[in-house]
Amino acid sequence: MNVLVEKLRGGSRRAVARLLTMVENEREGADEALAALFPHTGRAWVIGITGAPGTGKSSLVNALAKALRRQERTVGIIAVDPTSPFTGGAILGDRIRMRDLAGDAGVFIRSMATRGSLGGLARATRDAIRVLDAAGFDVVLVETVGAGQSEVDIVRTAQTTVVVEAPGLGDDVQAIKAGILEIADVLVVNKADRPGADNTVRALRAMLELGHPVSRQQVVAHHGQLMNAAEPDVQTEPESLWVPPIVKTAATDETGFDELLAALERHHQHLRNGDVAAALERQRVEIELYDRLRQTLLSRLLAAVPPDQLAHVIERVQARELDPLRAVHAILTIASQQES
Amino acid sequence: MNVLVEKLRGGSRRAVARLLTMVENEREGADEALAALFPHTGRAWVIGITGAPGTGKSSLVNALAKALRRQERTVGIIAVDPTSPFTGGAILGDRIRMRDLAGDAGVFIRSMATRGSLGGLARATRDAIRVLDAAGFDVVLVETVGAGQSEVDIVRTAQTTVVVEAPGLGDDVQAIKAGILEIADVLVVNKADRPGADNTVRALRAMLELGHPVSRQQVVAHHGQLMNAAEPDVQTEPESLWVPPIVKTAATDETGFDELLAALERHHQHLRNGDVAAALERQRVEIELYDRLRQTLLSRLLAAVPPDQLAHVIERVQARELDPLRAVHAILTIASQQES
Repeated sequence: MNVLVEKLRGGSRRAVARLLTMVENEREGADEALAALFPHTGRAWVIGITGAPGTGKSSLVNALAKALRRQERTVGIIAVDPTSPFTGGAILGDRIRMRDLAGDAGVFIRSMATRGSLGGLARATRDAIRVLDAAGFDVVLVETVGAGQSEVDIVRTAQTTVVVEAPGLGDDVQAIKAGILEIADVLVVNKADRPGADNTVRALRAMLELGHPVSRQQVVAHHGQLMNAAEPDVQTEPESLWVPPIVKTAATDETGFDELLAALERHHQHLRNGDVAAALERQRVEIELYDRLRQTLLSRLLAAVPPDQLAHVIERVQARELDPLRAVHAILTIASQQES
Repeated sequence: MNVLVEKLRGGSRRAVARLLTMVENEREGADEALAALFPHTGRAWVIGITGAPGTGKSSLVNALAKALRRQERTVGIIAVDPTSPFTGGAILGDRIRMRDLAGDAGVFIRSMATRGSLGGLARATRDAIRVLDAAGFDVVLVETVGAGQSEVDIVRTAQTTVVVEAPGLGDDVQAIKAGILEIADVLVVNKADRPGADNTVRALRAMLELGHPVSRQQVVAHHGQLMNAAEPDVQTEPESLWVPPIVKTAATDETGFDELLAALERHHQHLRNGDVAAALERQRVEIELYDRLRQTLLSRLLAAVPPDQLAHVIERVQARELDPLRAVHAILTIASQQES
């Protein structure tokens, strides 16, 4: 195992690919590999990109990767597709991307899809980020398809979160925006060459003013600054006052990507100020440990409960003889009796 | 508490509203109320309705509720909005609905929204269904806004799941369809009066043929039957052979709702055949008990670990001195030492 991790650290693309496949499929040895990798993680800048269908996220991620490459930063891309693998969507996405970024040793692209639970996908994404981080990629871009709260769990592993919108996606989309606005560090109105882009910017700004605990003046001033990102941001700005800038891009002709990079850099800098990054990292560690503890504790408990007794409790719940809360206590009692 | 549950059983709408608010906010007494309600649950037919933004789910749910009312069935509606409450979307949705279904004592509508976790929302939805079920509503319609895997957890509480599509929503949506196709018992192409509806039907059918473990002939035959739903379905069809029928509707002029109701009834009948319904119910009970056990076990464990020792473990993970897997074992060891 350590051989594979050493090869990864030495820059072997094959080792990256093999380790990604291992953690994605939770194959034997994945846990040990991740433990061996772990000391080498924590250096990459992880940027999550999410948004509703039709906003052109994939093209935006490609253009962003190219812009980062022009700065001579290496880029790992994880495209998370919470849809089923049977359409081959993930593989297709890979191929389209390969055309654009193929042959560049500074870029590594992996699509992830699963039939399994969303929790499983979020875990696999977190571990894949660690592989690319330990492999030494400067930036890891995590793209998720979708439009709802499901992305929140996946994107939570990112340090900087970009929410992508596009003009003219209808009313329903407006409602959904509200939910993901809360996780946005940077807002992008993509396809800004289309009619209605300024309306989308205005709508987003209105929502930000409504939802953020800052005055209208601050928001407007902040946006004004970032839209024409010339002078650096106020360095002493506390975490609570980070207001997501709104940037207009057109991924097709790569318009607006200098502005997007500048906005992302400001957020990265903002994270480094004070203890914002450390506090967020601490939160991520807690979430992960609690998640793992829950799973381990349940496995241990179920191993201590005889299957026929468990089945009997479930039957009694199905028959409405026992409510779920009492059923939980019944199972805990059975387990403690078995142990003593 | 039992007084409130008795009032609910006696048909008090105020009791329904109060209990819904209690379970939604996980207020004190909610667990006891749910335990008291539990013996009276399991009778309602729970239908989940989900689909991408822009498919017209809300209008469809209203038209479906009206069609069910014409059959003299009482209807509870839970509109789950995983987006943030600060836009007032949920309240707005309520008002639009009230216009249509107002004053009908056989209908109860509740919107649910939360800033919290998706897991919390799924739990609250499950409990709200129980309240309406115990209150005696014949059918409970659960509508979720969104387009991703997030709906799966919420819709899992339903017996019959309707996935709504609409013509002309773009390429990205096609990809997402694949993921939710797997949870669909009935597929609806809404806004069927728009151009492209037949293309959407064809695309869905092609995906079904690709994804379902049935031969093309079976799928086509089955669709043929259900599109012109005249004679009853083959009663002996095993669970594995249920192929989601595709129904075209136009919620605006209520076209296609007789066909939709017929397709839903067939699925309901299909559930009653053999032990499909019991097996699904067993699965739901297991999921719920495991979910509750995980949470209870973690709470107990954390209560047994001194906060400073927990904080120390988290710090060591942040410093990359300890990998997450070993950190989990460290916490478990601390807890068992404290207990002994």
